[in-house]
Amino acid sequence: MKGIFVYADSIPKEGYKLKEYEKATGKIYQSNMVWKNPRLELRTDMPVPEVGDRDLLIQVKSCGICGTDVHLIEHDDEGYVIYPWHAKLNIALGHELSGIVAQVGKDVRDFMVGDYVCTEEMIWCGECIPCRNGFPNQCERLEEIGITVNGGMAEYCVSPAKICWKLDSIRERYGDTHDVFDFGALVEPTSVAYNAIFERGQGFRPGAYAAIFGGGPVGQLGTALIKVSGASKVIVFEPQEERRKLAKVMGADFVYDTNELQKSGTSPAEVIMDVTHGRGADVLMEASGVGHVVFPEMTKSLGVNAHIIQTAMSGEPVPILFPPMQGKAAQIFAAVGHSGNGTFENVIRLMGAGMIDVRPLVSATYSLDQAVEAFDASKKRLDSVIMFQNK
Amino acid sequence: MKGIFVYADSIPKEGYKLKEYEKATGKIYQSNMVWKNPRLELRTDMPVPEVGDRDLLIQVKSCGICGTDVHLIEHDDEGYVIYPWHAKLNIALGHELSGIVAQVGKDVRDFMVGDYVCTEEMIWCGECIPCRNGFPNQCERLEEIGITVNGGMAEYCVSPAKICWKLDSIRERYGDTHDVFDFGALVEPTSVAYNAIFERGQGFRPGAYAAIFGGGPVGQLGTALIKVSGASKVIVFEPQEERRKLAKVMGADFVYDTNELQKSGTSPAEVIMDVTHGRGADVLMEASGVGHVVFPEMTKSLGVNAHIIQTAMSGEPVPILFPPMQGKAAQIFAAVGHSGNGTFENVIRLMGAGMIDVRPLVSATYSLDQAVEAFDASKKRLDSVIMFQNK
Amino acid sequence: MKGIFVYADSIPKEGYKLKEYEKATGKIYQSNMVWKNPRLELRTDMPVPEVGDRDLLIQVKSCGICGTDVHLIEHDDEGYVIYPWHAKLNIALGHELSGIVAQVGKDVRDFMVGDYVCTEEMIWCGECIPCRNGFPNQCERLEEIGITVNGGMAEYCVSPAKICWKLDSIRERYGDTHDVFDFGALVEPTSVAYNAIFERGQGFRPGAYAAIFGGGPVGQLGTALIKVSGASKVIVFEPQEERRKLAKVMGADFVYDTNELQKSGTSPAEVIMDVTHGRGADVLMEASGVGHVVFPEMTKSLGVNAHIIQTAMSGEPVPILFPPMQGKAAQIFAAVGHSGNGTFENVIRLMGAGMIDVRPLVSATYSLDQAVEAFDASKKRLDSVIMFQNK
Amino acid sequence: MKGIFVYADSIPKEGYKLKEYEKATGKIYQSNMVWKNPRLELRTDMPVPEVGDRDLLIQVKSCGICGTDVHLIEHDDEGYVIYPWHAKLNIALGHELSGIVAQVGKDVRDFMVGDYVCTEEMIWCGECIPCRNGFPNQCERLEEIGITVNGGMAEYCVSPAKICWKLDSIRERYGDTHDVFDFGALVEPTSVAYNAIFERGQGFRPGAYAAIFGGGPVGQLGTALIKVSGASKVIVFEPQEERRKLAKVMGADFVYDTNELQKSGTSPAEVIMDVTHGRGADVLMEASGVGHVVFPEMTKSLGVNAHIIQTAMSGEPVPILFPPMQGKAAQIFAAVGHSGNGTFENVIRLMGAGMIDVRPLVSATYSLDQAVEAFDASKKRLDSVIMFQNK
Repeated sequence: MKGIFVYADSIPKEGYKLKEYEKATGKIYQSNMVWKNPRLELRTDMPVPEVGDRDLLIQVKSCGICGTDVHLIEHDDEGYVIYPWHAKLNIALGHELSGIVAQVGKDVRDFMVGDYVCTEEMIWCGECIPCRNGFPNQCERLEEIGITVNGGMAEYCVSPAKICWKLDSIRERYGDTHDVFDFGALVEPTSVAYNAIFERGQGFRPGAYAAIFGGGPVGQLGTALIKVSGASKVIVFEPQEERRKLAKVMGADFVYDTNELQKSGTSPAEVIMDVTHGRGADVLMEASGVGHVVFPEMTKSLGVNAHIIQTAMSGEPVPILFPPMQGKAAQIFAAVGHSGNGTFENVIRLMGAGMIDVRPLVSATYSLDQAVEAFDASKKRLDSVIMFQNK
Repeated sequence: MKGIFVYADSIPKEGYKLKEYEKATGKIYQSNMVWKNPRLELRTDMPVPEVGDRDLLIQVKSCGICGTDVHLIEHDDEGYVIYPWHAKLNIALGHELSGIVAQVGKDVRDFMVGDYVCTEEMIWCGECIPCRNGFPNQCERLEEIGITVNGGMAEYCVSPAKICWKLDSIRERYGDTHDVFDFGALVEPTSVAYNAIFERGQGFRPGAYAAIFGGGPVGQLGTALIKVSGASKVIVFEPQEERRKLAKVMGADFVYDTNELQKSGTSPAEVIMDVTHGRGADVLMEASGVGHVVFPEMTKSLGVNAHIIQTAMSGEPVPILFPPMQGKAAQIFAAVGHSGNGTFENVIRLMGAGMIDVRPLVSATYSLDQAVEAFDASKKRLDSVIMFQNK
Repeated sequence: MKGIFVYADSIPKEGYKLKEYEKATGKIYQSNMVWKNPRLELRTDMPVPEVGDRDLLIQVKSCGICGTDVHLIEHDDEGYVIYPWHAKLNIALGHELSGIVAQVGKDVRDFMVGDYVCTEEMIWCGECIPCRNGFPNQCERLEEIGITVNGGMAEYCVSPAKICWKLDSIRERYGDTHDVFDFGALVEPTSVAYNAIFERGQGFRPGAYAAIFGGGPVGQLGTALIKVSGASKVIVFEPQEERRKLAKVMGADFVYDTNELQKSGTSPAEVIMDVTHGRGADVLMEASGVGHVVFPEMTKSLGVNAHIIQTAMSGEPVPILFPPMQGKAAQIFAAVGHSGNGTFENVIRLMGAGMIDVRPLVSATYSLDQAVEAFDASKKRLDSVIMFQNK
Repeated sequence: MKGIFVYADSIPKEGYKLKEYEKATGKIYQSNMVWKNPRLELRTDMPVPEVGDRDLLIQVKSCGICGTDVHLIEHDDEGYVIYPWHAKLNIALGHELSGIVAQVGKDVRDFMVGDYVCTEEMIWCGECIPCRNGFPNQCERLEEIGITVNGGMAEYCVSPAKICWKLDSIRERYGDTHDVFDFGALVEPTSVAYNAIFERGQGFRPGAYAAIFGGGPVGQLGTALIKVSGASKVIVFEPQEERRKLAKVMGADFVYDTNELQKSGTSPAEVIMDVTHGRGADVLMEASGVGHVVFPEMTKSLGVNAHIIQTAMSGEPVPILFPPMQGKAAQIFAAVGHSGNGTFENVIRLMGAGMIDVRPLVSATYSLDQAVEAFDASKKRLDSVIMFQNK
């Protein structure tokens, strides 16, 4: 079968000593310190993967390209990949995926061949203490489809059944169209935003004012989720015009061009205070990756009891001034992941109810054969979500 | 000025001994044990009330008739009023009111003549321990406009400024129309539903399934609030056809005629399990007043971690079977009141954002001069909300 | 090896039709409708059980007798067992157990031979939707050690590793004494109380006033947990003198004999209001099984925002009057189980810190050879916890 | 009567422009930009203050010196006071106070002459939107006893009745001793810690591991509160030996000298990971004022779902690295104040139950006549709490 692979050489940077665990498993904690010379390759000779007793074999229908994927094929001046977190190469990429169950392992009880499914992609072990205690996103033995094991940019992909979810309600609404699979592929990033806002960030009261910094996919999906959950004013800050337009489609009430604001001498904080008639924002989401720019604005535009949600993963420390946060009884919630807590179930329900529509996010579609073109487009960062579709 | 008064005689039922507090203040804890022979009267000779130092004088523009009002003028076979809670007669009725600030007390800092306002109507003291601790609805010295002091079915009404809220955002949306005042008058009952669902009931995750029993005003407003806050399926049970139609307008995805269900041998619990594909309801609201009928249905249709919200005030004990609740990790939240916790502010924001539209609830309007006709209509219980308008 | 078995005949009561699931698995949902003529037997010929790939073989050192066990060997007039919930006979009893790891399955990663461990006993599947969503106590495919599979009243017992917990911190404190295993065996019932109070019941603020109805093991352990977590006054109601004395040892500040109160014409509600100087109780725990007696007392002695916790499993509906609950902004949490949410970990930590001492609860110890005597003693219900010890 | 005053000159620093509000009220937002040449003076000619209709006149018995007080009399090189927040001089200092009610205003309903009381000192207005919404610590019109109006370092002091609390339960336990008033004076700082941990920081599960950075009064009182609420291990980091000893008395299980650690090349993070056997801390409290040193340690020693509580007020931005916080699902709560939410009531209950003993904190006592000596001692910062006592 076909599959889009990333190959790289394991050549630790000077000073980086491989840990025992890394040697034993081939999984590298800090990929940008070890994985060198990444090469993208469309393989056509992959065997259809074996299905374990508790696994599903998924005939992949849609698979999105995530920023992570791009960071695994881009490299710095020395040739090292950009991606700073754990990854095990060489693998088939793709962790935002959906498809049709083609085969079920012998101990699988909840799925049948023919089911439309997506997968969490995070293979939490279910046995370590964080998992037992209800924190699968903090699993101590996490594997990830498309990051540490073969992923969904392929004709078939294997996933443990316990992290797969049926797309029945979406199928009921949209019928047997390929849209169902695009929705399915985007359950995962929508769940990242949902987990950040509602599980980690503890949600908000309907009527709240929200400010979202950054119009990438998580910011866009956060905008949609926040609006559909009762925020009365949703303000998005984003420099790219296409993304601002998209934010309006997704649910933003107000969008601002940060570059334009800067030129006019107006700060985002001033905008927020103005739009909220001086009350400040109740929910603030840092989804831009430039926390050092965003936090000073956030701490000047807090509503009382404001919830700040950190979703962007940024390697740089962010300077935070506490007295204005103390004065407003504010808090910061650090978020990553999407598993557990009903998140996937709720996201699918919202999609099935027609309340979250992710189709406007899909700005381009490709076949696996167009792997190179698709990734070239991705690197330009003009698209919102690029989707591989197997039709 | 004009005002709609209820007069009654203080004649304690046999066996009911007036407490010292009741003798001293004239406030009666159990009105249906003391207030006899209620008479409705349109007075035209009332003086415009005096404004205390911290009060606003409100020129009333809209005032709804609430079930409480009707229960204070209806009587049982012995001639005692139906209303079982605390009330001090004789007073001008009306606690769902809005209008224009006509005069401000000398110590008032946040309002000006001409402001459009509504009032919480619950005059929490702000000094007793529940008030200090953030529970104004549990105030130990509660007074209520239109229940223990003169209310809003009049040309003018006095309210402490601290329980008044400006309607600016609604006015921005709807302009200087009388609609703004109808919205304003219904902030109070909307806040009753909001307090029950989001403050007392702790809200729900977007995507949740909700079941609402009873299509009276609180059930209708609860339906609207739950839908706008991200419930993916909202199911309403109500025997009256007009109310079922209204529920659809307010946001219900499914409405069922409980009489019809009974005839067909289907229980509400079966309906819920069917609509939710066996997952059960995550939010269940008892707003019907027949808890003994509703609870057995709710305990058979619980989702895991279901929140049951009790808003109806019913004098009868409700038999509850705990093992099915334990099996589903369910909980019951008992709710009354609407003050505190940002509730009024959030309701006004939702109205100002066009996300909650209460106008479909107003089924009839009257002038004060039509007091008798309006209350006669109320007693028929065919209307949703009857509104007095001073134009 | 030795093991204490309960045998019974599967003879459904007239009118009870076995479900397909019950036929297929032998697990019966309502044991008291099917299991007849229970016989207790000490077997000595049991083979040491096989260890699955993900299992531990535990050499049992301590195993408590729980009310469930007694209900599985007692019978009604027709000969049916008393226990009304799901059970699969014939099995070795015992679900409150601890011991030493004797063998580890080949896929087990977190345990070694020689580890001191206890087990959750609830074998949640980890794959059904409630399990995925963080509700293992609501697992749809629950098995239970000592209830549906062979338990700990034996020399050896098998448990999935994922539900086992190490007793290291308790061992650090108490050394290599048999006490460590008694603690270990009682982690399970302590976790039942912990889950009820802190997970389901959402805990309480330090300084709170607590009232506990019923001095059985869960009530006693609840008393200890509530006191050690900052309640300023803990009031226990219990008719048996020995249990009242024990409650004082466990942490109660006040204990009352309900029989004595009744004779003196004083109600528990009056006692609570008196002890709390009229503020009422903030936490109320129904652990007596006579909810119809307890709830009317609770609703008359509620503090503002009171949390009522239902732990007793009672087949009868409990009549609840809502207006006093609404007036006090009260809520009821229905609790069962103990898995998930850090509960076992925290209970072990508290025991290891010397903050929860369960030894006073162990009122009698027996060897497996004394099975009959031990159960005879249990049936008298004078003991708090009877412990089988393999020394 | 006698009273300890601080006098200063209002001479704005160059570049600081007084706001209209500051000119109108004399209250200065940034005291260190305006108040120059502070002088401490014991006045003996003060008139006993007038009591407003809703006020109490308190005969002060104990009044603590807080860091705020010292910062209002110390000055920088240019002569400006150190205190950076709002203050209105000239006033009698003292906001940690207790005493006996000497007179009650005519509208006061809950107090009598002779009552033993303390006061919140934060005079929240009860009418602004944050106050209405349950956030008195965020009051928009806050006055503070001893900071913007005359305080408790005097023979008498006036306080609104609504912020006074009776010390009855403490008096019940300790009798009519002066200790009761020392407890009373320290209800305020204990409530600062309580508000930070339980209201703002959302508390923790019993069994939790806690790390407290800084052994000043708030750190000490936090230590006591955290231990009495069920933390199984409480670790305190503090360079001063006396404070470390005191922390052990207050409830710390482990104390570490940060200077000593540094010398030995061990970081606080390593200590925490060691003491918690690799699990990390569940509650982390920054009470040292050197957040830039503490946060990097905290982010390396987080337990899953860790709560970081910021109580110190520090003018410098603190650099925070988010990925380790995201990896552990951690959050930061910014805290200030102590009013509302049952905090004072619960602190008094804990003191009355003998569960929080603040007496070890009182390291020196003085009479008002010894004002100069007392403040000289305060400036040395060797004492924990210095108390003025009027005997």
